[in-house]
Amino acid sequence: MTSHTLAVIVLAAGMGTRMKSALPKVMHPVAGRPMISHLMDTVSGLSPDRVVVVVGPEMEQIAKAVAPLPTVIQADRLGTGHAVAQARSALGDFDGDVLVLYGDTPLITLATLERMLAERRSQRDPAVVVLGFKPMDPGHYGRLVVGAEGLKAIVEWRDANEEQRENPLCNSGVMCIDGRRLWGLIDRLDNKNSKGEYYLTDVVELARFDGACCSHVEGDPAELLGVNSRSELAVAESLVQARLREAAMAGGATLIDPETVWLSWDTRIGRDVTVWPHVVFGPGVAIGDNVEIKGFCHFEGCSVADGAILGPYARLRPGAEIGEAAHIGNFVEIKKATVEAGAKVNHLTYIGDARVGAGANVGAGTITCNYDGFNKSFTDIGKGAFIGSNSALVAPVKIGDGAVIGAGSVITKEVGAGALAVARGSQMELAGWADRFRKQQQAKKKG
Amino acid sequence: MTSHTLAVIVLAAGMGTRMKSALPKVMHPVAGRPMISHLMDTVSGLSPDRVVVVVGPEMEQIAKAVAPLPTVIQADRLGTGHAVAQARSALGDFDGDVLVLYGDTPLITLATLERMLAERRSQRDPAVVVLGFKPMDPGHYGRLVVGAEGLKAIVEWRDANEEQRENPLCNSGVMCIDGRRLWGLIDRLDNKNSKGEYYLTDVVELARFDGACCSHVEGDPAELLGVNSRSELAVAESLVQARLREAAMAGGATLIDPETVWLSWDTRIGRDVTVWPHVVFGPGVAIGDNVEIKGFCHFEGCSVADGAILGPYARLRPGAEIGEAAHIGNFVEIKKATVEAGAKVNHLTYIGDARVGAGANVGAGTITCNYDGFNKSFTDIGKGAFIGSNSALVAPVKIGDGAVIGAGSVITKEVGAGALAVARGSQMELAGWADRFRKQQQAKKKG
Amino acid sequence: MTSHTLAVIVLAAGMGTRMKSALPKVMHPVAGRPMISHLMDTVSGLSPDRVVVVVGPEMEQIAKAVAPLPTVIQADRLGTGHAVAQARSALGDFDGDVLVLYGDTPLITLATLERMLAERRSQRDPAVVVLGFKPMDPGHYGRLVVGAEGLKAIVEWRDANEEQRENPLCNSGVMCIDGRRLWGLIDRLDNKNSKGEYYLTDVVELARFDGACCSHVEGDPAELLGVNSRSELAVAESLVQARLREAAMAGGATLIDPETVWLSWDTRIGRDVTVWPHVVFGPGVAIGDNVEIKGFCHFEGCSVADGAILGPYARLRPGAEIGEAAHIGNFVEIKKATVEAGAKVNHLTYIGDARVGAGANVGAGTITCNYDGFNKSFTDIGKGAFIGSNSALVAPVKIGDGAVIGAGSVITKEVGAGALAVARGSQMELAGWADRFRKQQQAKKKG
Repeated sequence: MTSHTLAVIVLAAGMGTRMKSALPKVMHPVAGRPMISHLMDTVSGLSPDRVVVVVGPEMEQIAKAVAPLPTVIQADRLGTGHAVAQARSALGDFDGDVLVLYGDTPLITLATLERMLAERRSQRDPAVVVLGFKPMDPGHYGRLVVGAEGLKAIVEWRDANEEQRENPLCNSGVMCIDGRRLWGLIDRLDNKNSKGEYYLTDVVELARFDGACCSHVEGDPAELLGVNSRSELAVAESLVQARLREAAMAGGATLIDPETVWLSWDTRIGRDVTVWPHVVFGPGVAIGDNVEIKGFCHFEGCSVADGAILGPYARLRPGAEIGEAAHIGNFVEIKKATVEAGAKVNHLTYIGDARVGAGANVGAGTITCNYDGFNKSFTDIGKGAFIGSNSALVAPVKIGDGAVIGAGSVITKEVGAGALAVARGSQMELAGWADRFRKQQQAKKKG
Repeated sequence: MTSHTLAVIVLAAGMGTRMKSALPKVMHPVAGRPMISHLMDTVSGLSPDRVVVVVGPEMEQIAKAVAPLPTVIQADRLGTGHAVAQARSALGDFDGDVLVLYGDTPLITLATLERMLAERRSQRDPAVVVLGFKPMDPGHYGRLVVGAEGLKAIVEWRDANEEQRENPLCNSGVMCIDGRRLWGLIDRLDNKNSKGEYYLTDVVELARFDGACCSHVEGDPAELLGVNSRSELAVAESLVQARLREAAMAGGATLIDPETVWLSWDTRIGRDVTVWPHVVFGPGVAIGDNVEIKGFCHFEGCSVADGAILGPYARLRPGAEIGEAAHIGNFVEIKKATVEAGAKVNHLTYIGDARVGAGANVGAGTITCNYDGFNKSFTDIGKGAFIGSNSALVAPVKIGDGAVIGAGSVITKEVGAGALAVARGSQMELAGWADRFRKQQQAKKKG
Repeated sequence: MTSHTLAVIVLAAGMGTRMKSALPKVMHPVAGRPMISHLMDTVSGLSPDRVVVVVGPEMEQIAKAVAPLPTVIQADRLGTGHAVAQARSALGDFDGDVLVLYGDTPLITLATLERMLAERRSQRDPAVVVLGFKPMDPGHYGRLVVGAEGLKAIVEWRDANEEQRENPLCNSGVMCIDGRRLWGLIDRLDNKNSKGEYYLTDVVELARFDGACCSHVEGDPAELLGVNSRSELAVAESLVQARLREAAMAGGATLIDPETVWLSWDTRIGRDVTVWPHVVFGPGVAIGDNVEIKGFCHFEGCSVADGAILGPYARLRPGAEIGEAAHIGNFVEIKKATVEAGAKVNHLTYIGDARVGAGANVGAGTITCNYDGFNKSFTDIGKGAFIGSNSALVAPVKIGDGAVIGAGSVITKEVGAGALAVARGSQMELAGWADRFRKQQQAKKKG
């Protein structure tokens, strides 16, 4: 028996007209990254020897997303068989297995592909292995005609008779083909059908005409959802979210209401973490153990150490690093800043381009003024410092360890360790003014 | 064949006791407007010649909602037949078709009503066309008894025999009646039944007694949900939301998690708009193309131009007009204000009764002080101005084009174009004060 | 017939390994309180004469949660029969009914338990009554073998034959046992099975061997969900939430999208309250009548009087008391503070340790500075006072009735009733500065 090598051809040239989008269909994101990237990740699990992605014209975005893997352009859309033919120059002669996948079917799992490969490599040596499935609503899918000798044909819906239409086993389009036969089969496809297209599905009958055997493997319909509209995109998203939520819970996190927690493909959540309802994890988030995440938090590109308490309404943007047992409270935004262990930033605060030292306390309504319209500058708040409420810290500025800033101050100069700094106007009072003003205004309204 | 005219009688007198509400049942909103308004909208699609709404006593709110269409008051609640009788004076003699609808069945579609009218206007000329449906749980609904000659009778559950109860075809109550026969039939209804009420359903048997034919049309159970409790109101809401979400997605918007996006009946969303999870669109919102709406946004009565980036946690209130490619960030509230193209209002800010000029940058924590307890005043921020963080702009006030406001300033006077204005206290420092205070407090705690 | 007394043994010693948690399994919260507390609440509805909770070693948290009810420790985990045996010393001889419940099955209802007791106390005097159920997926549950003479045996899945496995009636483990027989049965349990454990289920066959009759009652599978993983915990949560939401709606509250509203076990909501999507009610919240709660609110430990308007994004923390027709607006946090009738706190504000007098208006961006790093101090805002936007009120401080605070002030001293107080820097302007700065920066960027 030969040692099998593997090539993968991914078809991703579809326009996705029903998406009504300027973005190529397979670039639409699911769980925070393009559909095609989900698929490529699964493909990489097979350690293929070669991979070629077939794209349409003006789809550089896809080429970028899959780089350094090569792409070839299918200039005219003449069917799936024609699309595979475009990969010929890039793939060359290849006598291993050739797996044909679809960029708009991102949920297919490694296990399913491995079952296809195992079938292809089984003793009966089928020329073509097709992935079938039994959807809830078989609708107008093509059907797999299976007999004692294996897969006999793939019949398009429009060409199927009554009996064939009652067969629930549908064609997913995914195939594994013997590379030694592939180009020979492709060369013989024709477009003598109502749509005038070259159908890849015809390789089954051609292979059988050659006396080769074909076979099929059955897959889970949930894996084989093809995304052709925003509505189907939402279904794909919900299936991926369900997987991600289950994994987070299995890992020891409580998602109080999993359906309201949105996770990215790369979200990492530790043990004994509690996530309250209505939380969004954008890409690039890592949460430690024993963290409590209250409702309405929105995170992206940030890390949170063990024992931290976040939210509700905590907004962590890229570059936020929250230290052990730190507290980030409500209506607080942290961007590109380190909040060290035990520090508290609890209310209505913006911390950007800054360090908040260990154990420091940042009062309600504090703003780090990090931008002057041209440059971003750094604010350094020392260990154990206390920033009085409603203060503005005008960067670049340094607040020394243990310093205290009086409430309502605008701090523009460095404050020494252990010092008190205050920068505010002095209070003056006009007795009776408010009473007079009120009377005057009430008189005006009546008058 | 006569040219058919159409009158519609809407029954809306029900108290809705199970709602436990001071609000008339049909005034409870679905997707941001009263149930009755949904129904009236559908009715207007039929271009009826006359419409009469039958309400209960003290339901002026309904009269207002349906104005200028006439309402009549059903003083006593003596059944559906009695309710229809109340419309007689307002409707007068009418020889077209008379459609009887229910204010608490707001999901019925134009297509279904048109099918009923087509049936009424068919060659067999039925005196009464009843809308039937087959609910998941037929429960205690009345049943439509249908034979070869058409609809024979409507049997109330309590009067039905075993065989009739097994019939899944239920009575929705919706009817289309030949206007030439209507009042004659209504006059002959009696209340000799266990509830002592005049049932409209009895017109079927009366018409057949007269030798006329009756018939039925079958509708989608989801359209025929009657709302009698807050729980059923929530089901109606979810059905309408599902329709609105599908429409938004079909139009080219990505709703990442459609179930968490709440839309109003009149929400308009453009193409290639991405809506993140947990967003609420109150009434009167129009969103352009290529807009990104991050999580936890709450909009009402506002417009957003192409390419804008909103949220998370952006709060747009009535009169907010967001210009092309403008950014409205987190914990920002905009009310009755124009934010021109390319302007940025990114953090913890309140903008009310104001203009933010094109390309201006409003720093974190900025507040337009638009209210003095009696009057609202206007803040005008010029093109390209830069408002330093944590500033208060005391309206009425004008900031010139390209002006810069120093962080933490309270601006009460006009600032010239291209000028810098600062209004803050000067910083003073007491070295060692914080250290002494801390020691003192720690001593106190121990002592 | 004897008058029946009741003892309850609650088994709560399970480690819950699949939870991957440092917290004992039954302490994981559902709807804001530990699972075990839900169960104990149901148990208290039976007014039992004695209750014993069997816990594992180092589960003091459970003992605390169920106090003053006694707990006994099951040092070794040798099966359910062994667990019940641990209760012997605490329970003593008891000739009433003994109900055995499970701490990780918190959804069981009082009505179901009452049906079990009624069966136990029926004429046929069964020695053991077992609660059976028919789950969607019977999987590997033990099966109840029932014949004409009642319950014959409980067969473990692994010991069941084909026919027994097809029986859909499963064993929930919940039992009611005749106290006069209990210890005699328990003494005779052995551990001669593949797991080497003492199974409580064996009491059925032992009782029948003694010539006693046994019987069963069938329960709702939804009540009998056992929680062994975070995923099952989420299912339990969703079932409890569904009950709580239905109850709130039945009581006259509109939950516009019930699935997005999270309630605690003790949430109280009045009549004609509207709750918009995405609201979290933590424990200890009471809402009056005619209150409107907009989206994205987060409440805990607070009370809200009739006619108040809250949110969106209102954050009420423990000790917040909102008066009649008061308004709490967006990005506002209230902690341990009274907001009296008709007062308005509408935007970007933190009110902590304070009183806001009736009819007072607190401007956007106001902060009560209640903490100096060591002590919390009180802010008292008088009736009808007007606090200008972006003010900081440094506690302890008192603002007199009807006083006005100028926008952007830092108030550190008492302000008299009817007075105006202002504390801010004065405005100065440098003409042309911004234009020069901009040119300089642009030159730098190019250079």
